[in-house]
Amino acid sequence: MKIGIIGSGAVAQTLGKRLIGLGHDLVLGTRDPDKLDDKKMFAATLREWKSQTDERARVGTFKEAAAHGELLINATAGEVSLDALKLAAADKVGAKVLIDVANELDHSKGMPPRALASQERCLAEKIQAAFPHLKVVKSLNTIGAPVMVDPKALGGGDHTVFVSGNDADAKATVVALLKSFGWTDVLDLGDLSSARGPEMYMGMWIRLWGATKTPMLNIKVVR
Amino acid sequence: MKIGIIGSGAVAQTLGKRLIGLGHDLVLGTRDPDKLDDKKMFAATLREWKSQTDERARVGTFKEAAAHGELLINATAGEVSLDALKLAAADKVGAKVLIDVANELDHSKGMPPRALASQERCLAEKIQAAFPHLKVVKSLNTIGAPVMVDPKALGGGDHTVFVSGNDADAKATVVALLKSFGWTDVLDLGDLSSARGPEMYMGMWIRLWGATKTPMLNIKVVR
Repeated sequence: MKIGIIGSGAVAQTLGKRLIGLGHDLVLGTRDPDKLDDKKMFAATLREWKSQTDERARVGTFKEAAAHGELLINATAGEVSLDALKLAAADKVGAKVLIDVANELDHSKGMPPRALASQERCLAEKIQAAFPHLKVVKSLNTIGAPVMVDPKALGGGDHTVFVSGNDADAKATVVALLKSFGWTDVLDLGDLSSARGPEMYMGMWIRLWGATKTPMLNIKVVR
Repeated sequence: MKIGIIGSGAVAQTLGKRLIGLGHDLVLGTRDPDKLDDKKMFAATLREWKSQTDERARVGTFKEAAAHGELLINATAGEVSLDALKLAAADKVGAKVLIDVANELDHSKGMPPRALASQERCLAEKIQAAFPHLKVVKSLNTIGAPVMVDPKALGGGDHTVFVSGNDADAKATVVALLKSFGWTDVLDLGDLSSARGPEMYMGMWIRLWGATKTPMLNIKVVR
């Protein structure tokens, strides 16, 4: 499948490498594709990423990534996602599925970062409102990048990932992609308003990370 | 142990019955102990609760419960917890441990209720600030009442409960009580600011409840 990732940080790079490994035709979108040697937080430079990934690994602008993908992934920092999607001209790409894996975090008050989600502030709903043609599906935002793409690396894969969205076919596409990563317990939370749940959970995830001292963690919904 | 519960709804009744069963000396505090026949949401009347529980089951005012307990539990609705604790004269009971199991929910916009917690709005921190002599420990607010007191009734008990608080001895007291309920995986999230995590998680819990159609659910932190 042709996939465009909006974003080029740690999450985007990890998702991108995995998707290329699964045989997808990927463009990783970044603000300025000429800056292949810029240092990134918790991640390789894009030149390193390309060399470590595959000869097929392509870097383009946000706009090129959005135009390329039949499926899009928002893997930017949540605070800048709306701006990045505007730069990507995501309002002009038609009715594509967008997986929103981002969280709005405030790093300005030191550690731990503060998850900004609330009942009044849900990034996925803001993206859907700003880009009504996109079929936004919230997923994977509750999980650190290495576990996102390789659930079996943690606890044998016996834990849960979530999907929220208004379009059943779009959710089915995302569920199939998650299963190709190795996910077995995919819980459909409902329409896009249910994304408030996993977004608010980020406030919990950060505390779990602090208590366990590892991002190699996830929750299993026991029911 | 002498325990005073502030609150008399479903959570208070379930905790109270279990604590009496474990041999504790309990007073359940309610706004008006003469109204034993008032209908309660998702719960028995207090007269029914007393008759179903044990001859030792006592109902008193908020103030009587707070004076009685060496250990206190806030099991009121989060929206009214500060008022209830003021009525309980919780500022005059000394340095008692208070387990805060409450969540601030907004029912005014219909179903599902909206969890109001955010980085700026943490009930446990508000209680600690208003009653600085109390040793507030947040716990059990992430779990429905039947599972709180009987974790083994769900998935053999293989799931997680959390504690947050500023006082190590107070947390140890709460952990011992949780273990007496059957909890085996108690995760200490840190000081009371970490209660923002489990309080924000309530926004997720409500969506998990909606998706699974049962309050008999909890999360296991896989790490």
